Amino acid sequence: MDQDTPHPAALRYGAGAAPATLLPSNAVLDTMFGHRSVRAYRPDPLPEGTLETLVAAAQSAPTSSNLQAWSVVAVEDPDRRERLAALSANQRFIGEAPLFLCWVADISRLIRLGEAHQCKLEALDYLESFMVALVDAALAAQNAMVAAESLGLGTVYVGALRHQPEKVAAELALPPGAFAAFGLAVGVPAASGAVKPRLPQSLVLHREQYRVAEEGSAIDAYDQALAAFSETQGLGPVAWTPRMLSRVATAASLSGRDRMREALNALGFPLR
Amino acid sequence: MDQDTPHPAALRYGAGAAPATLLPSNAVLDTMFGHRSVRAYRPDPLPEGTLETLVAAAQSAPTSSNLQAWSVVAVEDPDRRERLAALSANQRFIGEAPLFLCWVADISRLIRLGEAHQCKLEALDYLESFMVALVDAALAAQNAMVAAESLGLGTVYVGALRHQPEKVAAELALPPGAFAAFGLAVGVPAASGAVKPRLPQSLVLHREQYRVAEEGSAIDAYDQALAAFSETQGLGPVAWTPRMLSRVATAASLSGRDRMREALNALGFPLR
Repeated sequence: MDQDTPHPAALRYGAGAAPATLLPSNAVLDTMFGHRSVRAYRPDPLPEGTLETLVAAAQSAPTSSNLQAWSVVAVEDPDRRERLAALSANQRFIGEAPLFLCWVADISRLIRLGEAHQCKLEALDYLESFMVALVDAALAAQNAMVAAESLGLGTVYVGALRHQPEKVAAELALPPGAFAAFGLAVGVPAASGAVKPRLPQSLVLHREQYRVAEEGSAIDAYDQALAAFSETQGLGPVAWTPRMLSRVATAASLSGRDRMREALNALGFPLR
Repeated sequence: MDQDTPHPAALRYGAGAAPATLLPSNAVLDTMFGHRSVRAYRPDPLPEGTLETLVAAAQSAPTSSNLQAWSVVAVEDPDRRERLAALSANQRFIGEAPLFLCWVADISRLIRLGEAHQCKLEALDYLESFMVALVDAALAAQNAMVAAESLGLGTVYVGALRHQPEKVAAELALPPGAFAAFGLAVGVPAASGAVKPRLPQSLVLHREQYRVAEEGSAIDAYDQALAAFSETQGLGPVAWTPRMLSRVATAASLSGRDRMREALNALGFPLR
């Protein structure tokens, strides 16, 4: 590689903070390193076969014990997208993007299988089974997201789909044991976003054992990098630390998600 | 594409069950469609820069509110890999593969940030915050897995790392608020695995709303496809349904993970 050409991963770390040793990139890595969240979409419909291709990519992700404890509800109907937007902090782009994928942590298929065969299903009552379903859904969704980006589409996850889980479940007609964990908007970007810098690797990558020493100076440097990035996005020089501290300060910061345990119990996850 | 050449996604569905409309594949989709779990590794060391490249891919995945509530502990020391294998159902390949990545749902960095700035951290006590950390870790890990496969390496997730969470946390010196959610073995495959068929799309992909009608015949077809696959792997004609029913029948099927809630409480996740 030309020594003057920055590595495709360099933007991910802001100025000067990229790891010194990185392998040459390839088409897969290029797609990942270039990820940015897209929050403005053109109304263009997606090419026929896009949804099926994204789901095939999602199903190609690993799944715990082959349980396949997830489903996806593909919402294209504009009215339903508007209703889901209203349930998800009124994020406008949910109504704009032609496809909104609701990723479902789903033990309901196993419940129905057990009922059909008159078998015990004790394990499904445990927190562990919910975690398996949630991780299965996340692994599948991430494959779909990267697949969409490889096709030139834009995406963004919507965690606000968890603000009112029972209402979302009713809108999607979810059976007991199914929980819409997050959304994914998919469409043709109307504006190109920017690659957001992340924490330096020294903070997230630990060798052999976790070490907490010397976090402070690395976080200071990241605060500066993120403030500079935020300013280029017209959002003012907002650093990471104050944003994070405000996000986790109070139960009210969770915008209703502080009742997640109660909501999951109501949706058929005892979480023992 | 030549009409006689099967689509790269076709193997994912067994004979005849692939979706009719799929977009032409590309390098990213090829990597995903070709995924298979690798459980036998050569001892070859990984090229310099592999770990940093995989972590850069992981950090390029989305993260809820940019909280980056995950970490990864990279274990290369053979003795530590053997000890982790002993804690993870004695899966031999953990000792074989040169790299074992432990993916950590991590709110501890936010706890330390709050303590340094003397701020309240109420939101971190809630189940929702644990879920954010778990999903963040899964999205990051899946990027790393696909990245590793794009580099010609083999991988497999290890959920059995959750069998004894407190002992794993001690081995990795995890601080309070950090939980090793699953492992990922990475190395040069010693044997090439096969692409495992998944459920037909009609069972996991729902349009507009979830529907449960007519699952039975689709599951019967999948049982046959998986039994045929299982036989080609020398495992006998084991279908999906009996395997799943045995997996979820009793708390004992969880191999200790039925005490996950207690373990997480002990590790600093109140899960309110």
